[in-house]
Order: sequence, then C-alpha cells, then structure tokens
Amino acid sequence: MNGAAAVITTAVRAGVDTCFANPGTTEIHLVGALRESPSIRPILCLFEGVCTGAADGYARMAGRPALTLLHLGPGLANGVANLHNAQKAHTPVINLVGNHARRHLNNDSILASDIAGIARPVSVFVRQTTVVEDSARDFAAAHRAAVEHLGVATLILPADVQWSELKGDQASPTLRGSHRTYDSRDVATAAAALRAARPAALLLGGNALLERGLVAAGRIQAAVRCRVFCTRAPARIEAGPGIPIVERLGYFPEASAAQVAGVGCFVLAGTDNPAAIFAYGDGPTHVIPHDRHVVELARPLDDATAALEALADELAAPAPVLTARRRPELPGGKLSSRNLADTLAAVQPDQAILVDEANTSAANLFEAAGAARVTYLGLTGGAIGIGSPLAIGAAVASPDRPVIAVQGDGSAMYTLQALWTQARERLHVTTVICANRSYRILDVERERAGIARLEGPAATLIDLTDPTIDWVKIAHGMGVEGSRAATPRELSEQLSASVAAEGPHLIEAVLET
Amino acid sequence: MNGAAAVITTAVRAGVDTCFANPGTTEIHLVGALRESPSIRPILCLFEGVCTGAADGYARMAGRPALTLLHLGPGLANGVANLHNAQKAHTPVINLVGNHARRHLNNDSILASDIAGIARPVSVFVRQTTVVEDSARDFAAAHRAAVEHLGVATLILPADVQWSELKGDQASPTLRGSHRTYDSRDVATAAAALRAARPAALLLGGNALLERGLVAAGRIQAAVRCRVFCTRAPARIEAGPGIPIVERLGYFPEASAAQVAGVGCFVLAGTDNPAAIFAYGDGPTHVIPHDRHVVELARPLDDATAALEALADELAAPAPVLTARRRPELPGGKLSSRNLADTLAAVQPDQAILVDEANTSAANLFEAAGAARVTYLGLTGGAIGIGSPLAIGAAVASPDRPVIAVQGDGSAMYTLQALWTQARERLHVTTVICANRSYRILDVERERAGIARLEGPAATLIDLTDPTIDWVKIAHGMGVEGSRAATPRELSEQLSASVAAEGPHLIEAVLET
Repeated sequence: MNGAAAVITTAVRAGVDTCFANPGTTEIHLVGALRESPSIRPILCLFEGVCTGAADGYARMAGRPALTLLHLGPGLANGVANLHNAQKAHTPVINLVGNHARRHLNNDSILASDIAGIARPVSVFVRQTTVVEDSARDFAAAHRAAVEHLGVATLILPADVQWSELKGDQASPTLRGSHRTYDSRDVATAAAALRAARPAALLLGGNALLERGLVAAGRIQAAVRCRVFCTRAPARIEAGPGIPIVERLGYFPEASAAQVAGVGCFVLAGTDNPAAIFAYGDGPTHVIPHDRHVVELARPLDDATAALEALADELAAPAPVLTARRRPELPGGKLSSRNLADTLAAVQPDQAILVDEANTSAANLFEAAGAARVTYLGLTGGAIGIGSPLAIGAAVASPDRPVIAVQGDGSAMYTLQALWTQARERLHVTTVICANRSYRILDVERERAGIARLEGPAATLIDLTDPTIDWVKIAHGMGVEGSRAATPRELSEQLSASVAAEGPHLIEAVLET
Repeated sequence: MNGAAAVITTAVRAGVDTCFANPGTTEIHLVGALRESPSIRPILCLFEGVCTGAADGYARMAGRPALTLLHLGPGLANGVANLHNAQKAHTPVINLVGNHARRHLNNDSILASDIAGIARPVSVFVRQTTVVEDSARDFAAAHRAAVEHLGVATLILPADVQWSELKGDQASPTLRGSHRTYDSRDVATAAAALRAARPAALLLGGNALLERGLVAAGRIQAAVRCRVFCTRAPARIEAGPGIPIVERLGYFPEASAAQVAGVGCFVLAGTDNPAAIFAYGDGPTHVIPHDRHVVELARPLDDATAALEALADELAAPAPVLTARRRPELPGGKLSSRNLADTLAAVQPDQAILVDEANTSAANLFEAAGAARVTYLGLTGGAIGIGSPLAIGAAVASPDRPVIAVQGDGSAMYTLQALWTQARERLHVTTVICANRSYRILDVERERAGIARLEGPAATLIDLTDPTIDWVKIAHGMGVEGSRAATPRELSEQLSASVAAEGPHLIEAVLET
C-alpha cells in the first residue's frame, strides 16, 4: 500500500463517500487510489471553485464532509472563494492537494507555490505530510479538525509521499467525531433574562436553524413571547408549513437596526453578535447595539439545538406556533425583481432545497419560501459564485429532493462550469437565472455612497447588456436543457415541468428593470 | 480630493491607461474616481481570473503595468491562479483591492478575510494603506515594486481610506521606473567560456527573448557556433522569418535532458537553471546537470538584452543566421493533435500574436510558428485558464495586431467568461478550441506513473465527452461568433476569415483522437 492508498482507505473508514475533483499530475496517485476504492464516488468538476462549493453544499445537507481533490497551489487558489464561504458557514470540508515530490519542493519549478500560505486564510487545519508513514494519521487529523472545528481542513500530499510504499502495517488512526456541547449554567441565565426582559429576543444561527432547534425556539417564543430572529444568510435553515416562524435580519445595517430597535435583551444560539455586512460612514458595525443585555446560550461551535431544547424545558414551554401554508397568488404582468420571489413561492414544491444566490433580484426569497416546506441554503460568506456549485453538492447528498438554485446572472457567471457537472451526474437541479443584466447591487451602493450616476466608460462597470448573455445557449453548450421566461406564468410552468422531470434544467428569467 | 482619487490620479501620472475590473461595494469610491479619470480605460471582466490574466497579457505586450480592481479577499482569490502565472512570467501587474472601513476590519463580517495573506504567495509587494495621506505614496510604491521587481504588487485600500478627504495638498510622490543592469565582468567571463568550450550553449529566458536579445544571441551563435536554447514556456518570445532560430526546451525532463546532453558549458541570460516541470521518480530536477560549467550572464531581473549585445560585441560577432520563411503544406484528412500546429502555421499571418495554451493538443505550436513573424505568449506558471484572458490583454495593448489564442478545451473552460469581454470590447481575438474532449495530459501522466488504465467511476476524472461541450453555442451565448472545424481545410478557411474580419471569433477544432 502506498501513501495515496493509505489516505483514501482512511477516508473510507471515516465514512467519506464523495470526492469533488479536478486532479493533475501531482495527484495522479490519489486518482489511482480512488480507482481502487469504489465506495468513494469521484465527481469531476471543470473548475475548482465548483469542487469546493459542491463540497460545501454536500456537507450542509449530509452533515458530514466530502473530499475535494485539487491540483497544487493554483488549483487550490481557484477554490478559495468558495472555501471562504464554507468557513463562514461552519461547513466541514477536506481538501486533498498534491504537491511536488519532496526533493523538488524548493526548486522554483513553474508550478511551485506556497500551498500552505494559500490555504491558511480559509482553513482551520493545514498540514503537509512529510513522511509516508504519517499519511493515514494526517488524514485522520484533517478529518477530525473539519468535523470538530466545523471548517475547512487542507492536507497537502507531496507526490512522492503518495507513491511511496508503506513499510509494515499501515497506521490505523482513531477517527473521532464531533463532541460539541453547551454550558448548562447559561440555560438558567438565559431563562431568567428572557423572563425579566420585555421585549427580549432569540437570535439564532448555525446549527440552531435545523428543525429541532427551530421547534425549541418556537416553544420558547410561546412561553415568554420573545421575538425570534435568524442571521441574514444562514448556511442552512428549514422553513415553511410545520416550522415555527423566524424573522430574518435585513441586509443593510439600518434595516436590521430597525428590526431590533426595541429589543432590550438578546439570547444568542449558534451565532455571535452578527457583524454588519459593511460599515457605512459612522453607522453601526454590529446588529446588536452595545447597550443591550446579551446572553450567549450557545456559540457557533456549541450544540445550539440541545441548548435551545434545554432552555425550552427550563421554561416549561408549550408547543410552538407553526407556520401555516400560505401560497401567494401567481403575479400578473412581466417578471421583475419585485415579483420573482412570489412567483417561485407560488409553485415551489414541499421538500425542495432552495439555494439562494438571487441577491438584489429576489431579496425576499427566504420570506416567500414559507409557502412550502423547504430547506434554504444561503450565501454565508458573500463570495459570489457559490450557488450553482452548492446545488451540485445538495443534489448529490439528497438525490430524492428537487434542488432549485436561484441565481443572480452576475453571480452565476462566476462558476457557470457547474452546469456541466449537473448534466454529467444527471442531478435534479433547476437553475433560475435572474437576468437583470446588471451588477445591480453596485448601482445601489453607488447611490448610497453619494457618487453621481455612472456615465461614459465607467458606466460599463455595472452593465451586463452589451452583449446580452444568452443563458439558454450557454446551458445547451454545457449539456443542460434550457428555456426562457418573461412572465410569472411562463416561469411557473417551466419550473413545474422541470421539478416533475429528471436531470438538470436552466430557466433564464428575464427581469423587467 | 479623496483617497481613491489620489490613487487613481497617481496611476495616471505613472502612465497607467487600462484597468481590468470587477469591483464591489468596498471599491465603489475607486469606481467613482475612475469615472472622473477618462484617461484610464475601465474594462469589465465577469470573473477576476479574467482581470488578472488580462493584466498579464497587457503588460507582456505593452511593457508597462495595467491595474486590476478586485473585490476584497474572495475577488482577489479568484485572480490568484493567473497572478501565479504573472509572477512566473515576471510581469508587472498592480492589483487594487478594497477592504472594509478600518474600524470594521476585525469584526468578522461575512466578507472579512486575510487579504494580505491571500496576496502574499503571488505578490512581490503587499501593503494596506492605513491613513488617507499615504494613499498616493503607497500607490507609487506599488507601481515601483511592480516595475522594478517585475511582478505583482497588491495594494489594499480600506473603504474609508478611499472616501476620506485629503487635508491640504496631495502628496505627489516620485515615480521611478526600472533601472535593471548587468555585471560587465560577466560578459568577459561568458566570452571566455564560450570560446573555450565545445559545445557550449546560450540558454535564454525572460527579457532575452525580445527581438534585440534574440538577434544578439544569433550573432553570438554565428561567432562561436554555440547552441541557443530558450525556456519551455516563455512569457513572450518573438519568432519567425527575420528572427534567429532558437531551440525550445522540451516539456518532460528526459526530453530536455536529451537536448542538452552533450553541452559542457551554459551561458544563462534572463533565466536561472530551469527547474523540471515535475520530478519523476529519481529523475532530474533541473535542465542543466550539476557537473556542467555555468556562467550567469544576466539573471531574470537583469537587462539580458544589453548583456547579450555586449557579449556579441566582445566576440566581434558577425550578423546572425535568420529564420527563413517555411510555410508547411496544409495537412489532409481530419484534424488531430498531430496536424493542428501545422494547420495553424499554414495560414497564420505575420504580426499575429500567438497565445499558446494548447498543451497536449499542439505541443509543437511554437516550433511551427516560425512560418510567420509572430509574437508568442506562453503558459509561464502552469496554472491553466490563462489563454483567453491573456488574449484580452494582448489585444487591448496591440489593437492593430490579430491575436490567435490556441486553447485546450479543458483549459479554456476555466476562464470562459473571457469570451464576453472579448465581445464587449470588440477585440480582434480568434480563439481556437482544441476539442480533444479529455484531460489528455492526465492519461499520459497516469501511464508514466505505472497506474493501470482508469476504469469505472475513476475513468470519468479525465473524460470530457459526457456531455460533450458545444463551444459554438457557448460562444454565441457570450456574444462571440463561433464555428466548428473538423478538417485542416475547414480550420484554415475559418481562421483566415476571422483574421480578415473584425472583432472576436471562436473556432471549435474537433480533434480526432
């Protein structure tokens, strides 16, 4: 057994079953090891940002990490933006990155680079294996770091470590899982605070947003009449009929400030005090003002679900009020950013996984999602180009559920190579491209900054109309069926047909501006 | 004047006239400053890897840096792979990257990241401006670093540094250019070594490969009958009728080892002893074996042209032997990797700029390029996805010359967003997609590594046939005219038509395998 086989064998023992890959010469022995390990499904992505975003989506749905397989520093670098999103989502991801043979590491060959340096800003764990005997143990350490610290672990494997034969028995390292907990004293503190303050609020994030945590939060709300908020861009939240209602915080700082203005006490579960997306002028930098009482019930890596359940029990809380089904009417007229979310909500099916990278084109997508019982996946790190890859991972992890990825056109362009993998793997993903044909957010921010309307050459920096992108042709070019919708009726018919069919489909929703 | 305007004004003073941009909220004041600076042409790219590759291509042709404008850590990260190529090419590039307002830097907002950490592995200069009064001076330092150290300079500008007003007069920093030189004692040493050794060789790279350096090398060759080699993947080399003949080193270490086997003495100009692309088994790690005599006439940052001219004069060298025009016959039959380079050479025009990311599909593209007087731009850093962006930059810098970008299909997929910018800017670029529909190099490397032919799921890791990518549809979707060629005749006709027309065109060259 060589080092590559030791790594892949250990991954199998750890329960890894999926590898999103774009390997090169320095990973060829890991490819050889995958050849011999049929229990790991290799999925080729034609750009590394697709690999890393897909691994994120997989873990958000499966609750366990997938592998990526990336080629040296440049391959890893191409995946960094979506690894940034994964880190902010607290998603476990394990990158395997090849490197030159050890005696060639410092020779300034054309593909030599500081791989660990590239990995560090987006990893909770970075290690290069230096002797073949450590390869299994190093993989186990990477796996443990990803699962226990809920983030990205990057293991760098020199080519000769992969190809060298292990002497004697292979190492068989212990694989430990996550053992998150919470402090039971904080439960009593939170209960007292919620009873005393009027009004108080729960502010939820991270692992508080799965069904059990939300039900516990709903019970607490029923007991003490507090508000219940969630972070703006959750990694994953359950929503819709049967799930308690949660108010999502606004995007701009003044919007969230208005939401929480009257709240005197906040109990945090699964999140810290969220930072503002940007600091404008001398405006607020955090959602919760300095002068409010804050109880940290469960920090992001704690078991927020168990903490919330304990708190509900402590309060002897009754059953929660659940969201009632409320399907909006299908809007009339032309499609626009004002009616896109309602149009989708009018037809989206229960059990759908809704990937939201709509940005300005459907800012209320989450709020409208309550029309059906869905799982919502958000843009956690603000690095655009995650949606289509995330949809791949979600569809691989949950093959029985339809995935609907709602994508700004500017964002979708970043990682459009994902369409090809959706076609190859016959994934049940419907991509809705919100074709407003501009970087609309930039014009909003220009106005907020008090800069005059862009004219002349600078105006081209936010305009996507020259040439107009034909998403249907691009989809066809990648092997994905495509269609175009200009009205809510057309979009609803095409979406219903796509959800009822198999395999991927892309709908270019042309938005009136 | 605010900090953003101070930076852009200083860039104008430094002679910068082009900015490849994909800005976001934290760069909006730089966008505002560009609005007021019509002498800098802003060019929108729909992915940052396109911005950075285009800036590389621009500087290779123009001989001076362009700006990129990138959004925070994720935007920069998306550009890192092509910045790696630019660093290996010794190309000056200046990245402007926005950051949060200073008081928001450490608040763990969703877009917070270690921007300097992301930049460092691919920059000769990284600085974050901390007070608005330093903004012009910091830009000048970045410009100087890029030009003098021939690499990537990254200047990070917090949003509030951009928007704050300068008090009093703006700083007007000195802008110095490059002052590279060489050591004249090395000229005498090299002359003596070349006279004494039989056979000896010149090994050229970097700035030795422009016309003057090559003519000087040709004179030296005529004087002492030495061999003349160049590095495998030069950033830029002139070639064809009127230029002395140069032997390019082979891709695999055993190929270059065979080329240089009998050479006892090497004179290096514009390069160090090149490292092997990869180290295989216990094979060589460098082109020049340890036991040979080496004279470093001009290191990569020295003025190799002047050093070669001084050496030619020292040797009282006669006129060089120049390449004679030799057009290959147009091959018959179907297109394949075996006849693609000759097919292109049969019709490519003088003055063309040839961008080579063909990889296995046309390994002898450079050698065949001698049919016409062309400028050849190579894949310096091995990070694929550079060709289409490089073609943008070359076309912007040299609008009167046709650009022919020969692209492996796997490589082209990495940064296909470049097609849209080619369409928007009406650039005279012909993209030839070498559609072999596989990661062919990986199968070659698998065989070299002694791994059995890939079967089952692992075989999908090198195969691009399911689904087949329809490049003509993708081009149309991006606003670029496209056509498909299956024979040398079809390709030659389509290429000739495209070169004679205006604006971009894509040809999918379907290769028989």
